[in-house]
This record gives sequence, C-alpha cells and structure tokens, in this order.
Amino acid sequence: MVSLGPGFPEYIIPRAQAALAEAQVVVGYQTYIDLVRPLLTTQEVVATGMKAEVKRCQLAMDRARAGQRVALVSSGDAGIYGMAGLVLEMGAAQGLKMGPPDREAEVDFHLEVIPGVPALAAGAALLGAPLMHDFVAISLSDLLTPWETIEKRLELAAQGDFVIVLYNPKSKKRDWQLGAVQDLLLRQKDPGTPVGIVSRAMRPGQTIINTTLDRLTQNPVDMQTIVVVGNSQTYTYGPYMITPRGYLAKYRGQGLGVRG
Amino acid sequence: MVSLGPGFPEYIIPRAQAALAEAQVVVGYQTYIDLVRPLLTTQEVVATGMKAEVKRCQLAMDRARAGQRVALVSSGDAGIYGMAGLVLEMGAAQGLKMGPPDREAEVDFHLEVIPGVPALAAGAALLGAPLMHDFVAISLSDLLTPWETIEKRLELAAQGDFVIVLYNPKSKKRDWQLGAVQDLLLRQKDPGTPVGIVSRAMRPGQTIINTTLDRLTQNPVDMQTIVVVGNSQTYTYGPYMITPRGYLAKYRGQGLGVRG
Repeated sequence: MVSLGPGFPEYIIPRAQAALAEAQVVVGYQTYIDLVRPLLTTQEVVATGMKAEVKRCQLAMDRARAGQRVALVSSGDAGIYGMAGLVLEMGAAQGLKMGPPDREAEVDFHLEVIPGVPALAAGAALLGAPLMHDFVAISLSDLLTPWETIEKRLELAAQGDFVIVLYNPKSKKRDWQLGAVQDLLLRQKDPGTPVGIVSRAMRPGQTIINTTLDRLTQNPVDMQTIVVVGNSQTYTYGPYMITPRGYLAKYRGQGLGVRG
Repeated sequence: MVSLGPGFPEYIIPRAQAALAEAQVVVGYQTYIDLVRPLLTTQEVVATGMKAEVKRCQLAMDRARAGQRVALVSSGDAGIYGMAGLVLEMGAAQGLKMGPPDREAEVDFHLEVIPGVPALAAGAALLGAPLMHDFVAISLSDLLTPWETIEKRLELAAQGDFVIVLYNPKSKKRDWQLGAVQDLLLRQKDPGTPVGIVSRAMRPGQTIINTTLDRLTQNPVDMQTIVVVGNSQTYTYGPYMITPRGYLAKYRGQGLGVRG
C-alpha cells in the first residue's frame, strides 16, 4: 500500500519510492499511474478507471496472495480517504490473514501501509499555516455517507470553532453540496472568515485561491480540490492564511515580547 | 520551513532533503537536529532546547533576512501543530514582507513551507486504516488553549461520531488530561470503542498499542505519542484498526458482492 503524496515524485518519501522500485506489479487509478510512470522500469502496470476501487483492491490482493510483490498506489496519504482501508476491509470480509512484513507469523499476504503527505498537509503548506490549531477533515461525497451525517458534522465543527478541511467538494454529478455547506457555515461563522482553496497541489495545473466564506462558491473547485475554512482566529497576511497557535499572545501576556 | 516527517530519513520527501542539502544554516529543536544529522554536511547547525520556539523562529528569520539560506526544521508536518505558523505569525506581527521563492516580488525573506508526513498519517499507517472517514485532530496541551475549549471540542467530536486524533496527550507536567478525556468520551461512546496508541512512529523506540476506550489510561503515553479513538463503526481485525469507508456496504447493497 504505497502513498504517493500530492505531486510526485519530489513529494514521495524514499520508503515509497523503494517500494515502487521493488514491486513486480504496480496497481492503481490511471491518472496516478501516469504521474508515477517516470519512476517505473520493468514492473507490470495494471491501471484501472475511476470507481473501480473494489476491483483494483481485489486484483492487488490476488496477486499478493499468489506471491508477487505488489504496490497498490494511492495519491496523497493512502490512509486518509484513500485505498488502505479498502484493502483491510476486503481482507477482513474474506477472512484473510494479513500482517506486517517484519513479522514471522503465517499470513495470506504481508501488508505494509506506507504513509505519504496528505492533500490537507500539501494544501495547507501552499496556503501558509491554516492548520496550526484543532481541525476537522470532512468529505462532502455523499455517495457513501448520508448527507444528513455530513451536515451534522459541519454544524458541530462550526460550533467547536475547528478549522474545517473539506475533501471532495464537488464532482461532475455532485454540484450543489458546496453551496449548501456555505449556507450552513454562514449561519454560524463570520462571512469574512478566510477560506483557502487549493487544486492539484504540487502538480501540473496547481491553483491557490485566498477568499472568504461569503465568496466561497464563486471560485472553481473539483474533485482534485481541498477547501480550508478558517476558525474565528484565522487571518490572512500577504499571500498567507494563518491560524494562530497562541504562542504570541502567551509571550506578550508574560511581557516577553515577540522575540522571546 | 522544512518538515521532517515521522522517522527520518526514509520518511523525508526529496524536496525536504534537497532543502536541507542546500541550506547554509539548519535551525531546530535539539532532538530533531540529532535525528537529521546524518543528512548534514557543512551546514552551520543551531540547535535549541524545548520551549524555545519563539527564539528559534526569530533566529531563523534574522538569518534569512541577512541573506542566508536557512532550513528551520519541524518534525512531522510543519503546518500541523508545527513551526510553520509561528514563523508566519511572527513575520506578520513584525510587519515583514514574505513570499514564496518562485515570485519576483520584493520581500524581506522568501519562504517555502515544505510539507511532510504528519504524525497522524504515520500513526494511522502503523495502526492500519483508522482515518478512512471524517476525523478531528485535537491537541490536549492546555498551555496555549483553555481546557474548557478542548473539552467542548471533544464533546462535539464525540457527538459527530468523528474519529478523534489526540496530539500531545501527556507531558511531565500535564498528567491528568488523558484521564479526563477518557471520562468525557465514555459518557458518549461505547467502552469497547477501538483505540490505537502510537509512540515514536518510524523511529527508534516505536510502539504500537491496540486497546479500547475503557482501557485507554492503562497504557503508557507521552509527548511523542498520538492516540486515535475510533468512530462507532471502527473495528479491529488481527493487528489492524479499521474505520470502514462504506464501499463494501454499498457494493453489497447493490448485490455486486465484495469482488465488485
């Protein structure tokens, strides 16, 4: 299970690069396989289309059970709305024994989950430092989660003054959710709350937008976008979105000044 | 601003390694400087102790303003409870002009925030896949945040059935918070809710513990630990903590079976 980070290959950790290099078979969604192809040599490549997640996982598991070294790739971090959970879910549903490669125990296949730079960290880095305080990650995809659950979570996140990271804000078939989120958040938060929108972080076509909550839906978003809505303390300074951690207030309160 | 990820150097992205290699000065907390030292050659190293965050940032900024190439290092991801925000806060408080290195604009210093694998992603990868659905990150450090705010956020996170990631669960001077969190969460969540505890992910002394909410405080934690509390759907299977995303339920409902 290999995480590719946001914008390969400069953002893929060496452990993941080694796993790709050592793999006999590389399995993944076509778009990401294309981006990672410069790193591949003689590996067999199995690329599948969108919405073929279950098929892709099954294929990777079958190959691994047959004794091949398989790299199943996932963009960002495989463990955050990625493919790592599906492999484990399917393995569990099929009663398979899985375990980390460093243990001797008898298993149907060994599994290493190699983490990566998640989209929320890549996006935050391009925006400045919006995630310096407590935050929530919420996916707006209601294909697998009832919309009422998503709405409830957004309400609670606003009540708690969390920074809010929205994954999957929009797709071709889902175009109304982000407007609904804006309406919901505007009932609880200041219209001028800073909002950052990052698409295709660290890869071709990257865009970074600084806006405010009342203007959120005037900006282009798609499935390769994350949206970061600030908390009540978040501010912008030059090109940066900043959520203060509280150090400066603390040091000022102690009369130590900014220079500490 | 260079993120080191959890367990250097195999988990440091190439972009960060390049920034370290190109730096004239490397500034950071002693413990992390020690871990990253194998990657350094002729760079000047300025290591400072704990709680010297403001001093460290100021020093890095002063050197950068003087024209030096500075790498200010932060473990995990610099943008998640890390040092990136403090640099920006201090720059803003001092009215400095900062901007990304790829723009021509006149600035007091150029700043690139290089993301990394955050502790939450590293910990999740070692536990299996606990972050496959909406989650919150909450720091239990009440040095900079009132405890009432932390408590309120935990209440709301439990109400929203978010997976909960706890940062800074304990330090030498803060020993009662995790017990208070356990009591609070037990009022809303099943005592058998899976909990994963990861310390020193991907570096010497790594430990991974699978436990349940009612046994949380029976386990050792410190400042280098993250705690992941599952949502109502999270389960364990073999050594893994799994939060289902919903694919399998969906495919089953459509009569497609697990194999899709």
